[in-house]
Amino acid sequence: MEAIAGNRISVREVGLRDGLQSIATIMPSAVKLDWCGREFAAGVSDIEVGSFVPPKLLPQMADTAEIVAGARKLPGLTVSVLVPNLKGAERAVAANAMKLNYAMSVSEGHNWSNVRRTVADSVADFGQIVALCRQIDRSERPVVSGGLATSFGCTIEGEVDESRVLRLAVELAELGAQEIVLADTVGYGNPAAVRRLFGAVRRELGDLPLAAHFHDTRGLGLANVVAALDVGVTRFDASLGGLGGCPYAPGATGNIVMEDLVFLLESMGYSTSVDLAALIEVRAFVQERLERESFYGGIAKAGLPKHYRPVLAGG
Amino acid sequence: MEAIAGNRISVREVGLRDGLQSIATIMPSAVKLDWCGREFAAGVSDIEVGSFVPPKLLPQMADTAEIVAGARKLPGLTVSVLVPNLKGAERAVAANAMKLNYAMSVSEGHNWSNVRRTVADSVADFGQIVALCRQIDRSERPVVSGGLATSFGCTIEGEVDESRVLRLAVELAELGAQEIVLADTVGYGNPAAVRRLFGAVRRELGDLPLAAHFHDTRGLGLANVVAALDVGVTRFDASLGGLGGCPYAPGATGNIVMEDLVFLLESMGYSTSVDLAALIEVRAFVQERLERESFYGGIAKAGLPKHYRPVLAGG
Repeated sequence: MEAIAGNRISVREVGLRDGLQSIATIMPSAVKLDWCGREFAAGVSDIEVGSFVPPKLLPQMADTAEIVAGARKLPGLTVSVLVPNLKGAERAVAANAMKLNYAMSVSEGHNWSNVRRTVADSVADFGQIVALCRQIDRSERPVVSGGLATSFGCTIEGEVDESRVLRLAVELAELGAQEIVLADTVGYGNPAAVRRLFGAVRRELGDLPLAAHFHDTRGLGLANVVAALDVGVTRFDASLGGLGGCPYAPGATGNIVMEDLVFLLESMGYSTSVDLAALIEVRAFVQERLERESFYGGIAKAGLPKHYRPVLAGG
Repeated sequence: MEAIAGNRISVREVGLRDGLQSIATIMPSAVKLDWCGREFAAGVSDIEVGSFVPPKLLPQMADTAEIVAGARKLPGLTVSVLVPNLKGAERAVAANAMKLNYAMSVSEGHNWSNVRRTVADSVADFGQIVALCRQIDRSERPVVSGGLATSFGCTIEGEVDESRVLRLAVELAELGAQEIVLADTVGYGNPAAVRRLFGAVRRELGDLPLAAHFHDTRGLGLANVVAALDVGVTRFDASLGGLGGCPYAPGATGNIVMEDLVFLLESMGYSTSVDLAALIEVRAFVQERLERESFYGGIAKAGLPKHYRPVLAGG
């Protein structure tokens, strides 16, 4: 394995949010925190532990404040939460979350069905969230991420114009986003589109960190990661076993599979700081507690290659 | 979707060989031919219909001569077969196969366990196969492909030295191979290795067509395809539903999934000439006839994106 200069890639677990919100089972808070602790111990240092949405809509996320409090006891873990609007951000700030992942949709139809807001109103909300966070003392101030769902297409609107995505990414950055996430929410993306769109955002935004949130719904998730790496994306969301899926497409996978992502990256010479064998044990732990759910991915079933060696950070 | 100049990519079905040889079920000859006819009608114009190996070893392939004869009645279909040695090539020639896919392993251990030959002896055999074919009248002469298994690692030897793969590719080309196939037989490959190795072979062999035979055992199959496209690979093996797998790794997938491959390529702007909706119907046809086998892949379950449009050849 050759080392790549500046070869650090951040992998972020979103299964506790994107995974658990998609399934009927409500995971007990103690199990969620156990999961966080185990995956952090395996080397995953950014975990989206839940979301601040109305508990009536997503009872699976009703304990997010409690999970944030528990996860913050793990020194070195970035405890992030999804927030869909200003109200959610206020709750996240009150809960002392370290990072707010704001998510709005590029598609008007999708944004409306999710948050009952126009895209322009959601952009304005983001400005208010940044302002809210700037009132907090710098040492305690959460990082604010700007995420754009349906960046690669939408089940409601079909094709999403790439220039709209680019414009919104620039707007969120100008409003103060400390990272931009482009999300392929419904698994419509492909490597050519990923290169074009992230490449355009990269050229526009310079050194602002870019993150990708890919779903593997149509099998292209890791292919899209390779394309994103080519144009300077350094942060990737994933979930153990691809937990999640889409309630409207039985058998369709959700997020890209965390353990396969780590295998991909480390095999290519990128350092993730994750102990893959330990991560596969965490997957087994979660799977045992979600017996009715489908878990996906290759490496956990097939095992590590005979000559597999992890990459050392900074190597 | 933007069109790419010179955007033709050939996808080749290997499920009738690599898939059926990996499972216990013996598919009736009539069903094999029905499968060939349906997949050809969906636009797949190169099908590896079987292999000429000793029927005692692989009874699933005992009817390969009959399948070749039947498949040759489909005008425009390239009827190819796998041959592991000179004897197999003689049977393939007698059966009137249009293309001989010679497969030997780079790994001595793997080659010995498969064909009881040293790698050097297998190279010499390839020379004899080319000589055999050159005795045939040009209008009837089969195309000879040189395939290198375990090019990206081996379950017996672990890491496989890339310089050995490159040297063998050059040797097969000098002996008369009309295409070079690098095979990730056990799913050890990764996009960085794919770019390095296919890139090196491309530089060495100029315009000789390069083909990739990837397995999705560890989830990186389509990611490897993207990497291979980057360095000029234009031909890809796959099987419907990823039929195949590895008898030593339960639940591990085999070949990359044909229908997901077509979706990947067409989405990226490459033309495959395949009607994806029709292909998904052929998958269903095969799956109904192999009820005990696992079928993989995303697009057949999740459905085509709302704005999916196939690319026109030469567009």
